[in-house]
Amino acid sequence: MALKHIYATSLTLLTDLYQLTMAYGYWKKGMAEQEAVFHLYFRKNPFKGGYTIAAGLEHAVQYLQDLKFRKEDLKYLSDLKGSLGQPLFKQGFIQYLQDLKFTCSVDAIPEGTAVFPNEPLVRVRGPLLQAQLIETPLLTLINFETLIATKAARIADAAKGDAVIEFGMRRAQGIDGSLSASRAAYIGGTSATSNLLAGQLYGIPVRGTHAHSWVQAFDSEEEAFAAYGEAFPQDSVFLVDTYDTLEGVKNAIETARKLQPKGFKFGGIRLDSGDLTYLSIEARKLLDSAGFTDTNIVASNDLDEHIITSLKHEGSKVNVWGIGTKMVTAYDQPALGGVYKLAALKQPNGNWEYKVKLSEQRAKTSNPGMLQVRRFYDKNGNIADMIYNELQQLPEQLQIVDPLDSTRRKTIAAGTAYEELLVPIFKEGQLVYTLPDLATIKARTKAQLDGLHESIRRYLNPHSYPAGLEESLHQYKTDLILKLRN
Amino acid sequence: MALKHIYATSLTLLTDLYQLTMAYGYWKKGMAEQEAVFHLYFRKNPFKGGYTIAAGLEHAVQYLQDLKFRKEDLKYLSDLKGSLGQPLFKQGFIQYLQDLKFTCSVDAIPEGTAVFPNEPLVRVRGPLLQAQLIETPLLTLINFETLIATKAARIADAAKGDAVIEFGMRRAQGIDGSLSASRAAYIGGTSATSNLLAGQLYGIPVRGTHAHSWVQAFDSEEEAFAAYGEAFPQDSVFLVDTYDTLEGVKNAIETARKLQPKGFKFGGIRLDSGDLTYLSIEARKLLDSAGFTDTNIVASNDLDEHIITSLKHEGSKVNVWGIGTKMVTAYDQPALGGVYKLAALKQPNGNWEYKVKLSEQRAKTSNPGMLQVRRFYDKNGNIADMIYNELQQLPEQLQIVDPLDSTRRKTIAAGTAYEELLVPIFKEGQLVYTLPDLATIKARTKAQLDGLHESIRRYLNPHSYPAGLEESLHQYKTDLILKLRN
Repeated sequence: MALKHIYATSLTLLTDLYQLTMAYGYWKKGMAEQEAVFHLYFRKNPFKGGYTIAAGLEHAVQYLQDLKFRKEDLKYLSDLKGSLGQPLFKQGFIQYLQDLKFTCSVDAIPEGTAVFPNEPLVRVRGPLLQAQLIETPLLTLINFETLIATKAARIADAAKGDAVIEFGMRRAQGIDGSLSASRAAYIGGTSATSNLLAGQLYGIPVRGTHAHSWVQAFDSEEEAFAAYGEAFPQDSVFLVDTYDTLEGVKNAIETARKLQPKGFKFGGIRLDSGDLTYLSIEARKLLDSAGFTDTNIVASNDLDEHIITSLKHEGSKVNVWGIGTKMVTAYDQPALGGVYKLAALKQPNGNWEYKVKLSEQRAKTSNPGMLQVRRFYDKNGNIADMIYNELQQLPEQLQIVDPLDSTRRKTIAAGTAYEELLVPIFKEGQLVYTLPDLATIKARTKAQLDGLHESIRRYLNPHSYPAGLEESLHQYKTDLILKLRN
Repeated sequence: MALKHIYATSLTLLTDLYQLTMAYGYWKKGMAEQEAVFHLYFRKNPFKGGYTIAAGLEHAVQYLQDLKFRKEDLKYLSDLKGSLGQPLFKQGFIQYLQDLKFTCSVDAIPEGTAVFPNEPLVRVRGPLLQAQLIETPLLTLINFETLIATKAARIADAAKGDAVIEFGMRRAQGIDGSLSASRAAYIGGTSATSNLLAGQLYGIPVRGTHAHSWVQAFDSEEEAFAAYGEAFPQDSVFLVDTYDTLEGVKNAIETARKLQPKGFKFGGIRLDSGDLTYLSIEARKLLDSAGFTDTNIVASNDLDEHIITSLKHEGSKVNVWGIGTKMVTAYDQPALGGVYKLAALKQPNGNWEYKVKLSEQRAKTSNPGMLQVRRFYDKNGNIADMIYNELQQLPEQLQIVDPLDSTRRKTIAAGTAYEELLVPIFKEGQLVYTLPDLATIKARTKAQLDGLHESIRRYLNPHSYPAGLEESLHQYKTDLILKLRN
């Protein structure tokens, strides 16, 4: 479902004012069409983890496809005033925007790919004005979905094959914070959502049972369970903690027994409070001794990968996990620090000039060039990722330099199998990429995670995956920094 | 701008599946039209603070006004399958939904009001099926905007009169996570946003200057500043930390000097990295000694109320604050734990039956009745808030009981001035409330904060504002809990 089918309004102004003031400046200076290269990347895996799952590209593509200044956008921009009440933008610029067509070339790493710090998730090459303009929406769309897909992958990993159901809408950050979180979580590893709109728009399987209020609405818990069981004889999960959890389990069992002769299948119980380990163990005993050995125990209540692991370690009998707030808001790190940096600018003489943004911290200095990421494989999976400049000839002997410690280097044997991670999405404004369906993206995530050593997938103190700069790029960057510092 | 003008798609399915399965159950059981009362409230002020600023009502109203199952919604629901492949819902229920008109009465606390734990921000009275259905969207819309308005109020408080500009879009949780955050932050106390779409849709003032990439795009920092200054002679803020911050300040001053004869006004410089205290003090000295005593020093870089306070304490000379990630994601607590609980259900005999949801923790037990919040005043401001049951006669002598410690009580003198905080929004489905404009809501926030003692506004270890249950409600609730526990 394309963004333009979700949003009635034009999203062209979904950007920061400074993108337009810079655009105006470039236009005024005659630099608007100068060819530039920008990279979108992050500097650290989120959640102190060892990997990140790329997501959000589909929405970014849809945003770019629909990029066009419409009448109401131009009117809004024409009406903006500077501090003296003068129009902020000259009419000639408004006319330029009116005629603007998106003509950038965009390469990107497909959704569902495991990615690492400093790797460009998106590379934009095209007229400086346009490539700059789209910075903010690209960051918004890619940062958030990548963050949530990664969180969901971690949670699904912790669940070790148990189903994980996302039901975070009520605590999500706005409507789209809920919708795109459901999509990204599904990419990352959840098996269903409670979010009907996400089901309707994206085709994600939906799940749900009943709330405490259902139980409260009846005179007794037994009546409530019976009424629900009669309405959904094949799809009932009883929420048992409205009054007293283990009494609730007993009431659920009693209800199931009574309904069984009418063809009722006792799907599960849900625990939403209290000591989930103790309660799930006791509930399992009660269920098993009543013969309901296939009945699921669903748990929810501010769970995340750490709590799931701890519950499993304690011997909990929960086998379906309902995850809300902690997943859809990425509670322990609610933003991915993705950035978008200028890396090259074509000079009037036709030569590329490479660009870096300096920083007191070496890790925050951007990488120059027009970058591609090459992933090397052996039969066991990924070996290493090499970030290199496509505009330069690669040396015979490939060496990868750790960006945080240039004395750590990895040499790649000649003939090692590899894949280029960035693939063409737009060529001079034309979409050349077929957006994969959600099932394909989800399967890609799984395959990608399977290709990572478990020490990298570990979510506490993971091993660091070798992803660094190709040696000649590293050397070029170092020289450029030294030159700029002098 | 109404939600339906932003979203092309029907938002009716912006809810959890379990709202529909319960709806089906109520419909099947003949309980769909039974009159119910639900309250939306939170249990703890966010950010360990002393108050919360209500927001999100406008969007909730727009959602409710537009609530209607459309053809595509009904088709989606009809197509949902149970675990045996059978349709999840009977056709009669789909027909019921098709004919459904929103007929609930809704009372709510206006946006911009300072509110406290357990106070219903929204009260819904109406047919059980409908009142239940809207739980999730009400929570999503109110939880998030309330969270962000509160965060913004804290940040604006820390800025002590300095302008606070929100520019969090790039790190926001999705499109709407950005849009509604800009709106809520403006309600809470920011003076502008970088978000053009929020400017276009909500009329919020927009601000912005240039990025590092602007500086990188030119051969030198001086050239970059000169080009920007020529484009915006009255509205330039130069970002000075692309290469070396204090050199950047000197280059900015030099540029301003050169442009001054052409009518240039040196608006400000922006610091985006490094030691903001040191750099702002040195920058101020450089600016002042060059005669630019009115030139602003804008700072950004993962700021929040705590860092602003610390910078001010250290003597920083920053006087305009650019706040992004930490505000729009409410980074240190990215979700408000608002809940929506059934509190009363009319019995076939016409009597109300009051409802509570028990919990091991007394603080998590819900409050029964049809609740209103009365705020008492004296000439200095607010004295206390009293949550009471509108369906019961109030005693002569009013006493407020602390919900966390029933031995702490406050007696209200007869004749004390008061205001009822919940006002009618919908009466039996008809909107009876005039949505105030954003300026009015923003002014209300300011007045409300002015009415709170500074010990309550403090954002570390605040004093606790007296907000509790009217004594007879407290007693009734206690009796009901004891009865249910036996």
